Amino acid sequence: MTQRIAVLGAGPSGLAQLRAFDAARRAGADVPEIVCFEKQSDLGGMWNYTWRTGLDQHGEPVHASMYRYLWSNGPKECLEFADYSFEEHFGRPIASYPPRPVLRDYIMGRIERSDLRHQIRFNTAVHSVEYSRETGKFTVTVRELKDDRMVSEEFDWVVVATGHFSTPNAPAFEGLSQFPGRVLHAHDFRDACEFAGKDLLLVGSSYSAEDIGTQCYKYGAKSVTFSYRSAPMGYDWPEAFSERPLLTRVEGNTAHFVDGSQQDVDAIILCTGYQHHFPFLPDELTLRTRNRLYPQDLYKGVFWIDNPKLVYLGMQDQYYTFNMFDAQAFLARDVVLGRLPLPIPEAMADDVDAWLTMYAAVDTVMEQIDFQTAYVRDLMALTDYQSFDLDLVRQHFVTWEHDKDESITGYRDKSFASPCTGTVGPVPSSTWWEELDDSLARFLQR
Amino acid sequence: MTQRIAVLGAGPSGLAQLRAFDAARRAGADVPEIVCFEKQSDLGGMWNYTWRTGLDQHGEPVHASMYRYLWSNGPKECLEFADYSFEEHFGRPIASYPPRPVLRDYIMGRIERSDLRHQIRFNTAVHSVEYSRETGKFTVTVRELKDDRMVSEEFDWVVVATGHFSTPNAPAFEGLSQFPGRVLHAHDFRDACEFAGKDLLLVGSSYSAEDIGTQCYKYGAKSVTFSYRSAPMGYDWPEAFSERPLLTRVEGNTAHFVDGSQQDVDAIILCTGYQHHFPFLPDELTLRTRNRLYPQDLYKGVFWIDNPKLVYLGMQDQYYTFNMFDAQAFLARDVVLGRLPLPIPEAMADDVDAWLTMYAAVDTVMEQIDFQTAYVRDLMALTDYQSFDLDLVRQHFVTWEHDKDESITGYRDKSFASPCTGTVGPVPSSTWWEELDDSLARFLQR
Repeated sequence: MTQRIAVLGAGPSGLAQLRAFDAARRAGADVPEIVCFEKQSDLGGMWNYTWRTGLDQHGEPVHASMYRYLWSNGPKECLEFADYSFEEHFGRPIASYPPRPVLRDYIMGRIERSDLRHQIRFNTAVHSVEYSRETGKFTVTVRELKDDRMVSEEFDWVVVATGHFSTPNAPAFEGLSQFPGRVLHAHDFRDACEFAGKDLLLVGSSYSAEDIGTQCYKYGAKSVTFSYRSAPMGYDWPEAFSERPLLTRVEGNTAHFVDGSQQDVDAIILCTGYQHHFPFLPDELTLRTRNRLYPQDLYKGVFWIDNPKLVYLGMQDQYYTFNMFDAQAFLARDVVLGRLPLPIPEAMADDVDAWLTMYAAVDTVMEQIDFQTAYVRDLMALTDYQSFDLDLVRQHFVTWEHDKDESITGYRDKSFASPCTGTVGPVPSSTWWEELDDSLARFLQR
Repeated sequence: MTQRIAVLGAGPSGLAQLRAFDAARRAGADVPEIVCFEKQSDLGGMWNYTWRTGLDQHGEPVHASMYRYLWSNGPKECLEFADYSFEEHFGRPIASYPPRPVLRDYIMGRIERSDLRHQIRFNTAVHSVEYSRETGKFTVTVRELKDDRMVSEEFDWVVVATGHFSTPNAPAFEGLSQFPGRVLHAHDFRDACEFAGKDLLLVGSSYSAEDIGTQCYKYGAKSVTFSYRSAPMGYDWPEAFSERPLLTRVEGNTAHFVDGSQQDVDAIILCTGYQHHFPFLPDELTLRTRNRLYPQDLYKGVFWIDNPKLVYLGMQDQYYTFNMFDAQAFLARDVVLGRLPLPIPEAMADDVDAWLTMYAAVDTVMEQIDFQTAYVRDLMALTDYQSFDLDLVRQHFVTWEHDKDESITGYRDKSFASPCTGTVGPVPSSTWWEELDDSLARFLQR
């Protein structure tokens, strides 16, 4: 009897799984029946922009954390699909740092050309997953949002590809209840224009803070103050920027910091990260982890050791993204197809332990890049995911970090060579700082 | 064996149910074991203010739709608990239109004095409810938010008291994705100060639009434009206000209306109502209704006819609020205690049909008030909920509508007599329009 696989989510990770099985099918393999459940009305996951925040039209949490004018914050060459190059999609070389609509078009393109859309049930939110030891099957219960009905189906495998940048981690600070302006988490940030002329406080010192701060300044914010917990980002910021230590309290519109300094602000954006959140999973199947390069309990970062018929994709902290999801999906596919036997649980746990021991020694950013490069290399050695120049990508990450240190507002003007085709991205005719239009059309004539 | 009741939610409706059983217990009755599940960290439901919007610190949808500077939009005398007067709580008469913190204090006070807090499990979100025809029991599965664990328990009765003003109904309009400013639903509105100096568009013509529009203007908004679907509110608005027909599209920051007029705006607030939303209930137990004075399928507006061990409180559109929830809770209690037998299903359905026939003839606001007055009178006749002067409350609603027509910015300065004690609320020393401080402390010295 044909096996059935439920893929939860049609973002880059879920689509990677669809594509992985399709590659096997085109090569003549018998593949299982795949049902991909997606609560949005289109594929693309996080890369679909919406003006909505909080709850959507069906009362479901809005998945999107992306905002207008978001540009890739790393070279596109570092995330290029090995089996579908940017050049193949666009028909010519494009610049190395595209805005969100360009990357979305690229993600969609690979799926449309593979004709995989029919495997996705849109407007369908996963409500719960149960596993029966008796039958060895999962029961997946979903809410069909358009008619508001619950439906349950059985599956042999479940692939969790719901992402981990959708559920805000938003700590409380004294005085926020009385702050006379907008307080929001980065998840709900949509349009920098709203903050033109304002003095902004961004709590956090990672990618969200860095990027939302620079976007807002680009679109007219008066000043940007960052508050860090452990260390400042330390970039060579424009004059209107400052970095301060931890926010201790807010009084009226005055923010107070742990070093005794203060700053009057008009709006507060909590760039305090995201939670891994799987409210549809029972406790015994739930991955519990902070955002780290190697979560516990997942063999090869993918298989839930206690029940490896449950697969998690993309749950790592990420330098590598699309190509890593692809390699993970190929590995999951090969196990499902019986091409790769899984070791016994003890051996899987030992493998995880070995990686965690290596990870414990990782300290610097360069070591983090090397660690995840080694992880992706390991995945690729296990599967036939199309090879690409991993050493070049590693080198790109190192160059990228250097570029950011050199100019946080200028690093997006650099060009990189594709690890798939070798083509070097053309230098755009306008700088990122000057370019206010983030549309696909504008990017292609730029 | 003692019966067990699950009460879902510790807002005014859920607390009414706790109080109803407590009243019976104090009078010597044997009462069932009650477990009230509340996802917030305190009781009060909607009346707890939070700066949070969207998802809370546990990734659960934020319940609160209330905002800073929210004042009661009806006389407090119309919602007074018959068994716990405002005068008893505050020790003296208070003005007829209190701000949110004053009403919250009143709601909390009745529960604290009854020592019912121990019946509530805070930080506990209901995940799912199942009913077994075999055992005749409900299994309620909750997520304990602090340790992120699922727990299931069995109950004989389930009381759904989760409210219906928490899940936004937010239709899409063309151009919102490109609007260069904030777009939000009223559910996420928190602080009018954010909109000082701005030109606002509020889509909708009911209580949210009316109240958020006037609050924003009071705290410095430059102009307020309402967009209505069927009819303008028609109040005698200040000069900075205008009412326009349905929004058709937004281009840049220009809103276009169906009559061909247009208006440039800085922010758009969708005051487009709420959905009844019970994602934790299976289809066969889910109330499906618009916001109306008499939902279908509920006997006496309370008992789910197909399975009357499932009770819904407060699911009606509301002129009456706290006192109606109390009367509903007393009725539910008396059925649970076996004091009141339920009719056979056909008779329950006939009773609902009779009310729906009456409701179908209701047209004007006055007829709506009379209809709900008749409903509350019916509930009170069936139970021993402490009587109060229902005719006086009805008259107050009529006067209140008249007051609003006379002055939408001045109606909150009027005084009304208590239907419980007869005391007339004192005239406050500052008008609502002048009073910018909505704190309990300020209100009590005012």
